[in-house]
Parts: sequence; structure tokens; C-alpha cells
Amino acid sequence: MNKSWIAVAAESDFPIQNIPFGIVKNGNGWYAASRIGEYAINLAILQEKGYLKGLSLPDGIFERQYLNDFIALGKPVTNKVRERIQRIFEEESKDGLRGNTVHRNKIMKDVKNVTMSLPVQIGDYTDFYSSEQHAFNVGCMFRDPDNALMPNWKHLPVGYHGRSSSIVISGTDFHRPKGQQKPNANEPPVFGPCKLLDFELEMGFIIGKGTELGDAITTTNASDHIFGLCVFNDWSARDLQKWEYVPLGPFLAKNFASHLSPWIVTLEALEPFKTSGPSQDPKVLPYLEYKGDHHYDIELEVAIETEKGESKTVSQSNFKYMYWNMVQQLAHHTVNGCNVRPGDMMASGTISGPESHQYGSMLEIAWQGTKPVQMPDGTERKFIQDGDTVVMKGFGTKDGVRIGFGEVRAKVLPST
Amino acid sequence: MNKSWIAVAAESDFPIQNIPFGIVKNGNGWYAASRIGEYAINLAILQEKGYLKGLSLPDGIFERQYLNDFIALGKPVTNKVRERIQRIFEEESKDGLRGNTVHRNKIMKDVKNVTMSLPVQIGDYTDFYSSEQHAFNVGCMFRDPDNALMPNWKHLPVGYHGRSSSIVISGTDFHRPKGQQKPNANEPPVFGPCKLLDFELEMGFIIGKGTELGDAITTTNASDHIFGLCVFNDWSARDLQKWEYVPLGPFLAKNFASHLSPWIVTLEALEPFKTSGPSQDPKVLPYLEYKGDHHYDIELEVAIETEKGESKTVSQSNFKYMYWNMVQQLAHHTVNGCNVRPGDMMASGTISGPESHQYGSMLEIAWQGTKPVQMPDGTERKFIQDGDTVVMKGFGTKDGVRIGFGEVRAKVLPST
Repeated sequence: MNKSWIAVAAESDFPIQNIPFGIVKNGNGWYAASRIGEYAINLAILQEKGYLKGLSLPDGIFERQYLNDFIALGKPVTNKVRERIQRIFEEESKDGLRGNTVHRNKIMKDVKNVTMSLPVQIGDYTDFYSSEQHAFNVGCMFRDPDNALMPNWKHLPVGYHGRSSSIVISGTDFHRPKGQQKPNANEPPVFGPCKLLDFELEMGFIIGKGTELGDAITTTNASDHIFGLCVFNDWSARDLQKWEYVPLGPFLAKNFASHLSPWIVTLEALEPFKTSGPSQDPKVLPYLEYKGDHHYDIELEVAIETEKGESKTVSQSNFKYMYWNMVQQLAHHTVNGCNVRPGDMMASGTISGPESHQYGSMLEIAWQGTKPVQMPDGTERKFIQDGDTVVMKGFGTKDGVRIGFGEVRAKVLPST
Repeated sequence: MNKSWIAVAAESDFPIQNIPFGIVKNGNGWYAASRIGEYAINLAILQEKGYLKGLSLPDGIFERQYLNDFIALGKPVTNKVRERIQRIFEEESKDGLRGNTVHRNKIMKDVKNVTMSLPVQIGDYTDFYSSEQHAFNVGCMFRDPDNALMPNWKHLPVGYHGRSSSIVISGTDFHRPKGQQKPNANEPPVFGPCKLLDFELEMGFIIGKGTELGDAITTTNASDHIFGLCVFNDWSARDLQKWEYVPLGPFLAKNFASHLSPWIVTLEALEPFKTSGPSQDPKVLPYLEYKGDHHYDIELEVAIETEKGESKTVSQSNFKYMYWNMVQQLAHHTVNGCNVRPGDMMASGTISGPESHQYGSMLEIAWQGTKPVQMPDGTERKFIQDGDTVVMKGFGTKDGVRIGFGEVRAKVLPST
């Protein structure tokens, strides 16, 4: 299985080796889809026409608003569906779709003509803080370089609960948030539009099979519960954050909008990009120890597009720059018995690499406004301006095969 | 409308003036119910038999697992349903149910014979920190009495996002959580069962009508979005909390289990208990100003029951001991455009009154273990032990009418 009978450009994120899952909005309804090259594949019709027989799929599983019921079936089912889709579309396929123009026209749609919708109903969203360089950078700015990391940081993957209601699909414009800020230490707080609007470059992983309250997931079986990943922009209002976050953490600074890429790339598709993580010193507690590689070499980039369409790449990072990996995060999250549900999302936290061009937020890139970014139109950016569109992309490449996430794109409109 | 033709004991929380809403588990299905005295009222059959005609209710709205679709209809509909139920069951009712034994037997069930289920699917759960005495007590213990409140505390209702997956119905036993603790400052953290397990006495309010991303709810229209309230036990593992919570807030210390009372008492039912709040100094920003009374005089109590059934009341607090009220909390939560959805829950934070017998957590009641509580069996409690059941109750009384929440009850089992 190397090539599809659907033409796929060399720079495409979606060769037959990928087979991601998403949801297409279809009039008043929805259908689940996969993607090869520039085609969205309607899985509801693929099932209806009999191409997915023998896979233990409930009728209508692909005609729902979200993928939750499908991914809850667990890897033994979802992996077989992904493999069947690969078999149907591979160059030498004997499944018959290639030669059936009527079926092909119903099942394959040009992605330019489909509207993607949020792929899962996210029950709970957790954000970690697992990139050492990011935590160090923030610690340097807000505390001091000698004590940049908090004492707990290397003992546990620090995380906090975020808001799921305001997680939206790529392409959803949003208004600059308003809120309390305290620009002057000796004066009362003021209210108004956020002045320090920032992106955060993150990867999010989606829970497939859930657990019951009281169950703990281990680093060994964590992969059974991770359905797949997306690129995630966790917008942050730095001025709101600074004033509100002590002692209980970020709240209004983070819950006004977060953007998710539309295609969930399965953990299995990312297998070729597994790589080793950093050595962890001090030694972690036994429940956080893991075997094998659970970091992923996935290139990430962030661009700012101005209203006139001029674009500047402001960050080139990589998902491998994580101190804590996903299996550690999930083991930690559930070690107290906290249950997870299909569709829950957990995000990495801002992913910053060791070099300054690899930082994952404007706070770090422009270092609190002291190193503004020069834009192609001659303007500069310390944070994100009204009218700017932030575009994030992610992909891995190995042995000539590129597997990616497409993009997550969001435009900032002025405050209302 | 003063009395029901159903007998209601004087000490009942559920006279005809209450008419709360809940969900009953019924074999493999569910139905929505209200309650008068010791009877659960099956709203699905009440509708099916034609008693709720003319109220614009979709067919089958009361046969779902959760109340979300019903409460999403908004106050103009849900208030009329509540009023119709009152009319059907009032002493002088002409609706005919009283005389129809066949219908009565289908619709009215002894609460001893029904199993309550979580009333709403909670999308997002937010916990505030709005009792001044509680914030002050915690500040005294962890910082110092001269700077007990953080600088932001009187300018905004401090809150943070919690976990909704682990919110369970009253009566759900749970195991003592395990996690990292750092008992000795100069030694590495250790892993094991939580040693400092605590309750937090809270009230939770449930969102009815939702909003779109970008919309802000004001203090003036907040009541349109608050469907009703429950008593809420926000269990906390103090040793886990201390080690993990800086800088991003509570996480595993709070998300292992939280218990909700089964009956949602509507905001309208609590109207008689409205009372004024404290004067707020410093003056709040305009979006937090409010008109009228939005605090509620609701008596709250917490008891610890030992395995042998001996009970000790350890706290007698009141919902009126809030600095920030619900309309301020909701206005703050959405002022940045954060959307809310039907079924979202927001909780008060621990409600501590000014006197030590009014404190809402063991941390405060036993003052970090320095003032242990004496139990009837001669043992003492600094925190909650395995085998203990914590029972919380809430009710208001005015003009001879008592309206209450029943109880929220949870037993702690040993760590697995």
C-alpha cells in the first residue's frame, strides 16, 4: 500500500498513508469523512453502499454531528475502518469503487466544495504546559531565570482544565475579547478590549475509548485511548491573564476562543514519526515511567497574514520539543481516578523549541514586546492586531511520505 | 396555590411551592421528574396523558437521559411547565388527575422506589471562589492574615475551569484518590493515597438558555440564563492541591469526584429567599454592578456519618455568605465573549460564614488539623476518613414555607 488511485500532490498532507477523520456539514445534517489528496470521502455513503461490510459498524454511525460514537468503538474497530479505506483507495484495489462512476461521484467531493465542522463534541478540555522551553521562557519573563521553572514542573506534567464550549473549527472568525486589565500597579484595574492578544501553538489529542470513574490509564495502555491529534491554537489574552491568574489559574484570558484543525490524524498514521524524548532528570515517579518512544517528530509552523494577504512565518517549531509526552500526560491525568470520555481533548501547551525562531507564542517571539516582528508590509507585531489571520500547520515527513494536519486558521475581528 | 392534594410533611423540602426537576433512571431508559413530598412525578407520562397540552413542548422531551433539551427551551417555556405542574397538583385542581387512579398510579412514584440520575449533561463546569470568609481563611493559612486576599479578589469573581466528567449524582460512592504529595520540603515528592481528603460545601447553578460565542450576558439578564440550583460537594485532596496548584490552579486535587444533589430547584422557586449582599468596596467596574437583590438566604449544613451510622453536624453555613452573587459571576464569565450552553454548571466555591461553625471545609473547620472535630463515637476528624459519608443539605424557610434541595451524600471508600 503505497499509492492511491486518487492523484495526490507531493506536498499534500493527505496521502493514502494518512486517512484522517473529520465531519462535513451537509445542509442541515452532517457526515463523517476522510480525506485523500483534494478529495473528502463521504464515509456515510461508503458504508451505505456496502464498502465497509464486516467491520461491526452500527448503521448510521457516520451520519452524526460528531465522531464521538465512532471513536468510542475503540481502536480494534476504528483501525480496521482506516485500513479498509486504504484498501478501497489503493492503486491495486479490487473493491470496485474506482470503476463505479456513480458511487465515486456520490462518495468523493472536492474539498473546496465542502464545509468542515468541529469533528468531536469535546466533553472536557485539559491544557498541559509540557514544553520546557516555553515554561522556562515564561518563568524568565514573569519570575527570574534562576528560578524559571516551578519546583513541581519536572515531577509532574502541570496541567489545568480549560473551556470546551469555546473551542471552534478552523476558519471561525472571532472578536477580540474584552476584560479587566491592570496596566498600572498603583491604580485600580480598567476594563476594555484586550491589548496583548496572543496565539499559542499547540497539538491536541482526542480521547477515543473512555474510562470509568476510579480507573487509571497507564503509560503502557495510554495509546489505546488516544484516537488522534489535531493542531490547536489556544488564543490567550496576556493582559487579562496577568491580572486574573493568581491563585487559581487562567480563566477569561483563555476561554474566549480556541481553534482546532478539522482533520483528526490518527495516532497510527503518526507511527513513522515517533522519536525519543529528553532524558528526564530528576527521575520520575513509577507511574510516569514509560517504555518505547512516545514523542513525535512533527514540524509545526505559524504564520501571520495581514488583511491585505501578506504573510510572515513567525515560528517554526516541532512537536518533539516536549518534556512530557502524551502517554505520561494521560497517565498523570487519570492516576487519581479521573475518568475520560470519548471526544475529550488534551492539549500540549505551547510548544517552543530551543531557538528563538522556534518559540510558540508572540509573548516569547517578541519577548514581551521588546523584539517586535517585522511584517512584509513594513508594520511590526508585538502581539496580534485586529484583521490579522493566524495560520498554523503541522506535518511529518519520512521515507518520502508526508503526513499532515492541514491548517488551523483564525481571523481576529475588532472588539464589538 | 398553597397546598397540594399530595400530603407534604412540614419538614419536607418539596412542597408544591418548590416543583424541582430531576431525572429518574427507569430500566434501560430515563424520564424527567418533579417532586412533591415523597412522590416523584413522571413528567413523560404527564405529558403523554395530555396534562401538559398547550405548553409548546416537543414530543418526548421528558424521555431523555438529561434535562438539557428541556431547559434549553428557556424560561418562558420552563416556567409555564412548572406553573402547570403546580396547577395540576394544587388542592383545588380541576385538571382531573386527582380523581384518575389509573393515571395517578402511572405518574406518581414513591421516591423510595426510584433511582435518581444526573439531571443534566454538564458541558463545562466552572468553580468560583466567591465567599470572602473562605478566601480569607485559606489566605491566612497559606499566606498571612495581613495579605490574605489576593489583590484581584475584590475586583473580579475569581474562578477557574473544573472537570465535568467526574461530577456524579448523590449516592455514588468513590475511592480515595491517589496522587503526588510533597510532605517534606527538602525531599522529592511521594506517591500514594491522599491523606488530607476534604469536602467543600458549595451551591451550583445550572445554565438553561445558552449563548453564542461572542455574546456577553449582563447582570440584568443573567437570571434568564440560570435555570436552577443544586447543592454541590466539590471534594478536594489538600495534599495533592498544595503540591500541584502553582502556577496554573487546582487539577488532580479536584477532578476525581464531585457530587451533585439530584433535584434542580428553579431560580423562581427561590425567589422568596432573596436577600441583599454585602456592600462591595472597592467599587466594582460597571459590568459587575447590579440592581436588586441577588443573594439568597438558604441554610446549608454538612454532617459526617461514620460507618456505624453515627452522625455529627460539622458546618451550618448559608448561601447568603457570598461576596459575589450569581448574576455577577455569569456577567464576568461571559464579558469576554465566552459562550455558555444549556447544562453548563457554575459553582459558588466553598461557602464559609463568619463564625467558625459556619466554615465550609474541614481545612477551615479543623484549621489545618489544629482543631480536630470530636465525633460521637469518640474518634476525631482533621479531614475525612475512609468509610465516612459526607451529607450536605440546603433549604430556605419563609412565611411557613420551606423549600429545599434534599441532600447530596457521598461515601469515601479506601484507595484501590
